[in-house]
Amino acid sequence: MSRTLHLALHPYGVGGPAQHGLWKDPRIAKNISTDIRYYIRQAQAAEHGLFDALFTADSQFVSAGFPSHYLNRLEPLTMLSAVATHTRHLGLVATASSTYNSPFNLARRFASLDHISGGRAGWNVVTGVDSGTSRNFGLDEHLDYTTRYSRALECVEVARGLWDSYEDGAFPADVERDIFLDPSKLHQLNHEGEHFKVAGPLNISRSPQGQPVIFQAGVSEEGRDLAARVAEGIYAPGDTSLEQAQEYYADVKRRAASYGRDPEHIKIFVHGDPVVAATDEAALRREREIFEEDHDFDRSLALLGRSFGAYDFSTHDLDAPFPDVAHLAEKGGRTGAVKLIARAKAQNLTLRQVVETVSELRRSPFVGAPQTVADAIERWFDAKAFDGIVLAFRVEDELNLFVDGVVPILQKRGLFRTEYTADTLRGNLGLPVPANRWTTGT
Amino acid sequence: MSRTLHLALHPYGVGGPAQHGLWKDPRIAKNISTDIRYYIRQAQAAEHGLFDALFTADSQFVSAGFPSHYLNRLEPLTMLSAVATHTRHLGLVATASSTYNSPFNLARRFASLDHISGGRAGWNVVTGVDSGTSRNFGLDEHLDYTTRYSRALECVEVARGLWDSYEDGAFPADVERDIFLDPSKLHQLNHEGEHFKVAGPLNISRSPQGQPVIFQAGVSEEGRDLAARVAEGIYAPGDTSLEQAQEYYADVKRRAASYGRDPEHIKIFVHGDPVVAATDEAALRREREIFEEDHDFDRSLALLGRSFGAYDFSTHDLDAPFPDVAHLAEKGGRTGAVKLIARAKAQNLTLRQVVETVSELRRSPFVGAPQTVADAIERWFDAKAFDGIVLAFRVEDELNLFVDGVVPILQKRGLFRTEYTADTLRGNLGLPVPANRWTTGT
Repeated sequence: MSRTLHLALHPYGVGGPAQHGLWKDPRIAKNISTDIRYYIRQAQAAEHGLFDALFTADSQFVSAGFPSHYLNRLEPLTMLSAVATHTRHLGLVATASSTYNSPFNLARRFASLDHISGGRAGWNVVTGVDSGTSRNFGLDEHLDYTTRYSRALECVEVARGLWDSYEDGAFPADVERDIFLDPSKLHQLNHEGEHFKVAGPLNISRSPQGQPVIFQAGVSEEGRDLAARVAEGIYAPGDTSLEQAQEYYADVKRRAASYGRDPEHIKIFVHGDPVVAATDEAALRREREIFEEDHDFDRSLALLGRSFGAYDFSTHDLDAPFPDVAHLAEKGGRTGAVKLIARAKAQNLTLRQVVETVSELRRSPFVGAPQTVADAIERWFDAKAFDGIVLAFRVEDELNLFVDGVVPILQKRGLFRTEYTADTLRGNLGLPVPANRWTTGT
Repeated sequence: MSRTLHLALHPYGVGGPAQHGLWKDPRIAKNISTDIRYYIRQAQAAEHGLFDALFTADSQFVSAGFPSHYLNRLEPLTMLSAVATHTRHLGLVATASSTYNSPFNLARRFASLDHISGGRAGWNVVTGVDSGTSRNFGLDEHLDYTTRYSRALECVEVARGLWDSYEDGAFPADVERDIFLDPSKLHQLNHEGEHFKVAGPLNISRSPQGQPVIFQAGVSEEGRDLAARVAEGIYAPGDTSLEQAQEYYADVKRRAASYGRDPEHIKIFVHGDPVVAATDEAALRREREIFEEDHDFDRSLALLGRSFGAYDFSTHDLDAPFPDVAHLAEKGGRTGAVKLIARAKAQNLTLRQVVETVSELRRSPFVGAPQTVADAIERWFDAKAFDGIVLAFRVEDELNLFVDGVVPILQKRGLFRTEYTADTLRGNLGLPVPANRWTTGT
């Protein structure tokens, strides 16, 4: 079977971590992040472009002192439920943390979204990089990295168990035999694990996809392992070289196979911020303009702390060598922290230089005229750097430029669908419907 | 100011506790409880009838052994978010438990619904009558009654604190002064109480209603106290006499006043299952038909246990005196349990007789031709038995009969609105927008 390219849209809104200055763009309404009509428009544009899914990031935390990331946003599951009834084919992937949610509530809400959307729900399982989140949930300290990942694995296992509570045909609704529910097709989970004790059954029937699609975003050792075990989709960071992306792709597929899974059943997306314009030159100009709009040293310094458990680097001398903060890496996003420390050490960088390196213009491979961007996508896709891209655009006009300019080229080359062939996210991603654990062949 | 009648719709679906046999009605699709189109249709019909709100009950539990209540339903907040974009004026009230949810997640999701709906969200705070719920959330035993109520009060206080995180005007988005968020208008809550420790701030701005409307359903001493302290709407059970309803109404309003609140700012709804038909006679026939459809001794016996911590009464001799189960009342819905025990003792009833009494036909005051039903509503409303009714109908035709037959009579008598005068739930209920605790007069 030939591989097919998948595309998802990540609607940025304003006030988020990756587009600091976006709110200043005169084309942007300042309150779009809480305006459901914005998300419905984005979703409909993505569906017009035959995208696989709308993808939403999330955090359950905003810093009172430096509230620059995931500030003032609609909660993903309520937002996507509203979007669901205004779309027909588009997958709806919500990020939700397994650290500060209970598996029963998560399983129920994603099953509900899957019913509401007719089989288009996906759950991007994260463990939470923002250490301050713990203080919104009664804990002084963020759970450590290892605990968070072991909890994530068990949380997905519990959710999947709950999603199997009802076998297909559990509701015969047979008036003559007076049977609404067939009790032999209803199963209690009775899970007792290290982190969770959940009896079940779930109070909502098996949803159109059997189970919502599981996404994961891990890049660390633990993250790759979790992804290979349970993920059906991966949302990998986009700021890597082609070679690094290939390494990640091959590694995760290999790990999945080592767990007895078909590597085809784990679709790897990378994040991409394409900049498309009429000419390559105009696109490069726009890329520089975006960089200038977002560039802010103080903000980069504050965001640096995010990878180290919300550590406040501003107390350090900017021109002294990068401080010894290795012990803080466990508290936040360990991979990013470890990478930064290694680079600072190898290149003997000061704190100021580390901040400047982090915030320097990263050349996206997807900048240029439509033809140029399509070429780059084809090259990376053919090189097995990804199965798909999660695309983010600054303004709706730029999303439309991609849909109307790049998509037709990808279609002509046979890389991308020319019509939806399925109404479910599983169907469009080429993922099988999981068998219900209780159903034995007849 | 003259009082105004309020109406809400409680869409039953099938498989719920109060309409056991409804799924057998040939006019009902068997899967309506998970079909978002059913809820959207119900909401639009309610809005066509100028109702104040759609009201959804909830439970986070279904019994594997006797799965007869709140079986297989969409989760309320995802469901109402989807309904929101298909309505413009109708309030959207979701039941959610303060026992098995965290206040940060609840506050965030209701604020999100309030943004999505443009100011129409309400939260019906319950503590959970189904003792088995605890086993879906890691606890062997359901929290006892007193703990649940003290937790509920604190949970609402935390949510309200989080909803005040951002003052009005917190987002000036002033390009010239380079200020997206004004940090002086963002506040941390730093709550530390008996049950919760929540730092905040919330990661979503103050919503169109300032705060979503708080509903409560308590009838016990603790419930009435909680309602009088924090509720802006009450959802009281409907199976009472006019005198009992008047006592409840006067008592809750008096208690609210004793807490320094304006009794007008707490709207008391009772549950009603009206049966409307062309003639009184036809309505009475239909009422009897519904009773026959729902009547089932074994099911009533099982449901009886719900008030006693899911106690299994089937192990007792049906014809012996009602067993001594007073010690179990703490585990479930205490008020109902205490009432049952008192009645059994006073009348010296057997277990069978208690079950039969519980499941006998209760004469709703709202059965008859449109004129008869309108008369009864007027009588109860004028007698201060309620400010509004939460109406439930078996099938959509019967909802339409009420909207087209009874509502115009209520309108002619000046009891009910002839058009929406507000786009928010607070506006339609005549409730003020709460002042933000951080905002001082200018």
